[in-house]
Amino acid sequence: MTAPPGAARAEAAQHPERPFAITARRLVTCDPSRASAGDPLGVIEDAAIVVRGGAIDAVGPRREVLRPGAGVPIAIEAAGVVTPGLVDCHTHAPWIGSRDAEYAIRMAGGDYEAIAAAGGGIVASMRAARAATAGDLADTLRARLRRMAALGVTAVEAKSGYGLDEATERKQLEAVAEAGSDARLPRVVPTYLALHALPPEAGGDRAAYAATVARSWLPAIAAAGLARYVDAYIDRSAFSVDEARPVLERARALGLGVRVHVGQFADVGGAELAAALGAASADHLEHVAPEGIAALARAGVAAALLPVASFTLRQEPPPVAALRAAGVPLIVGSDANPGTAPTESLPLALALAVRLYGLTVAEAILGATREAAAALGLRGVCGAVRPGLRADLAVWDLPHENAIVQPWGAPRARAVLRDGEVIAAAG
Amino acid sequence: MTAPPGAARAEAAQHPERPFAITARRLVTCDPSRASAGDPLGVIEDAAIVVRGGAIDAVGPRREVLRPGAGVPIAIEAAGVVTPGLVDCHTHAPWIGSRDAEYAIRMAGGDYEAIAAAGGGIVASMRAARAATAGDLADTLRARLRRMAALGVTAVEAKSGYGLDEATERKQLEAVAEAGSDARLPRVVPTYLALHALPPEAGGDRAAYAATVARSWLPAIAAAGLARYVDAYIDRSAFSVDEARPVLERARALGLGVRVHVGQFADVGGAELAAALGAASADHLEHVAPEGIAALARAGVAAALLPVASFTLRQEPPPVAALRAAGVPLIVGSDANPGTAPTESLPLALALAVRLYGLTVAEAILGATREAAAALGLRGVCGAVRPGLRADLAVWDLPHENAIVQPWGAPRARAVLRDGEVIAAAG
Ligand SMILES: [Zn+2]
Ligand SMILES: [Zn+2]
Repeated sequence: MTAPPGAARAEAAQHPERPFAITARRLVTCDPSRASAGDPLGVIEDAAIVVRGGAIDAVGPRREVLRPGAGVPIAIEAAGVVTPGLVDCHTHAPWIGSRDAEYAIRMAGGDYEAIAAAGGGIVASMRAARAATAGDLADTLRARLRRMAALGVTAVEAKSGYGLDEATERKQLEAVAEAGSDARLPRVVPTYLALHALPPEAGGDRAAYAATVARSWLPAIAAAGLARYVDAYIDRSAFSVDEARPVLERARALGLGVRVHVGQFADVGGAELAAALGAASADHLEHVAPEGIAALARAGVAAALLPVASFTLRQEPPPVAALRAAGVPLIVGSDANPGTAPTESLPLALALAVRLYGLTVAEAILGATREAAAALGLRGVCGAVRPGLRADLAVWDLPHENAIVQPWGAPRARAVLRDGEVIAAAG
Repeated sequence: MTAPPGAARAEAAQHPERPFAITARRLVTCDPSRASAGDPLGVIEDAAIVVRGGAIDAVGPRREVLRPGAGVPIAIEAAGVVTPGLVDCHTHAPWIGSRDAEYAIRMAGGDYEAIAAAGGGIVASMRAARAATAGDLADTLRARLRRMAALGVTAVEAKSGYGLDEATERKQLEAVAEAGSDARLPRVVPTYLALHALPPEAGGDRAAYAATVARSWLPAIAAAGLARYVDAYIDRSAFSVDEARPVLERARALGLGVRVHVGQFADVGGAELAAALGAASADHLEHVAPEGIAALARAGVAAALLPVASFTLRQEPPPVAALRAAGVPLIVGSDANPGTAPTESLPLALALAVRLYGLTVAEAILGATREAAAALGLRGVCGAVRPGLRADLAVWDLPHENAIVQPWGAPRARAVLRDGEVIAAAG
């Protein structure tokens, strides 16, 4: 780099409309108009990006974009690869507390459903969320988002779902809104995970709980503008399709998008429901029949793959080859949560998606940029490096996108920009 | 924390002999004198450590160690768990360049030996190391060690082995010495990896290459004080026991320790050789027969487990249960290298050791602290929190050691101290 990232930020802050440039030895645009069969990521070697007012103004070969005399200062000169900022399509990031004892039990052979039946699992996180102040929740989330940013992530879907009562779900979503209002953190897409587990006070009555959610909590949360999506955990030991449908239909009627946890442990028809509702994504899919895959494909629902969870749970991968063959868009999320995917790293999820799920490097990168952005309703905002989108970028100290999916276990982004401003920088 | 880490460092720098304290809600001492069957890690709740002159002066329950009026200032008040700084027993950290194309080939199904036969693999890193300046090598290594420190690591074994000629092996080891002279980085244990692969100019003559190493390069490197250990890669497609023995015997005669890569792809008798030579560790052991395990146990040779490599290579785990039953000390390394374990994270290796190899949390933690230090000849220096050792500590923003082995994929140390000075701190 010729100038330190701080200088670029200072410059941009003082003169928000003054353009600056970022050059890259290798730029992975993820721009479909530049992609081809042999180059699915639309790569430009020796590239330049012009940023103006936080948006991408021009992209192309350096010699074309930066004509001599144009006077656009180069803020960052990247010797490595530059990609769109990564987009994490599925996280439970607003959790608080630790379930490390449960993790140790699981590693020693205890299974998820046994832990849940014993009162651990989601209900343990519920207790922690209920006990926490709104300030604690927001502080914990901000610190987590800062660590995610350092890993190259510039947009994060964030689900509630550890409240299991109206007040605590709102408290979680308010923490998300507060963290999401900080322009120096990744942009945040709030999801009300309306059906996650039953709280103890529900007395085991799933239908009544779901009815209360649909009738009362969901409309109030929607009216408060606290969620862009509504999610439900549809599985053998969670909620059924019939229990979830009214909640998700109500969400649609209220103008919210839908995304669903389906098929993590068993195929109970969640994929078909996701398709019928025009969900933005169907997430997990470790268990999904050909009919479900066909329904997702017809409806254009993305499959959100969550390999850290299946790795932790010792599960077989989802049927990735069948999903791919059917034309279902593949996206990859960290599933960051304190129980089944106790991670904060989307790059680690990409490494596992390539190693364990057989995604190609290009599929993994697109599944954490353009395709993930599309599935979060951010298609016109981020996920690619093309004029008109926001300047959300990851500048890697790695020479090639192949290296991004290595299991580094450590931040390898040199600088991370949101809206053209540096939100994380190495060292 | 009551005082920021920087304040502790400034205080310590100005008054190196003035004691200060660190308190911890939970202190994992790894001190055998405090351990028991039910508490193999020797945990103290509500603990304090007094540091004086960079060494640990006192350890115990806070109320005993910090008597009112003693006037020892508390530099760090840790709300989470404190452990010894982590010790990475096996790395090829002084590499330069990227082998990401090879990684992508491997992920798509190409195997290690095929890549090596095609001129990739170690020889690709050899070309990069030969082309690099000593300054580039040292800068790259320092940056890597800084990232490792941020992950909680305070001691790193660092192997040469990408030179494959005398000048470049020395250049690598000189970079290790230079980085190792920086007190603000993890302490470094230099290993001359004398037999790693054949360079092209050797014309395929392993015996002649090994003879040159034993007769000429090794004595010169030993005389220059550039290595504490000598390593050899003993395997089906690497060097045989008969080729390696003279080199390793020469190393012993020159007063150097020995550690060996054995059984990664096939058991060719390396474990028995390691035992016969009194090696400090036998590393990999994905393939080792009961006789080899018995020999290691009798000789007290530690087994260095390298799960990132076997994960990347889609291999079955080593026979951990048999090693454990035989009483072989288990240690865990990152194997950080650009080809088979393209990682920088010892915590990720611990996560995989627990998830894939079935190590208990305590085995993993001891294998990255006390046992690893012992296998690096650092038993009297670090690896435990007990009086007399150096104050190499990791202060985690996690409540329990169970959480350290979760696959965070991100730094979760709040502060990392070497010799009582903060060498890395979060945010
Ligand atoms: Zn989830
Ligand atoms: Zn190795």
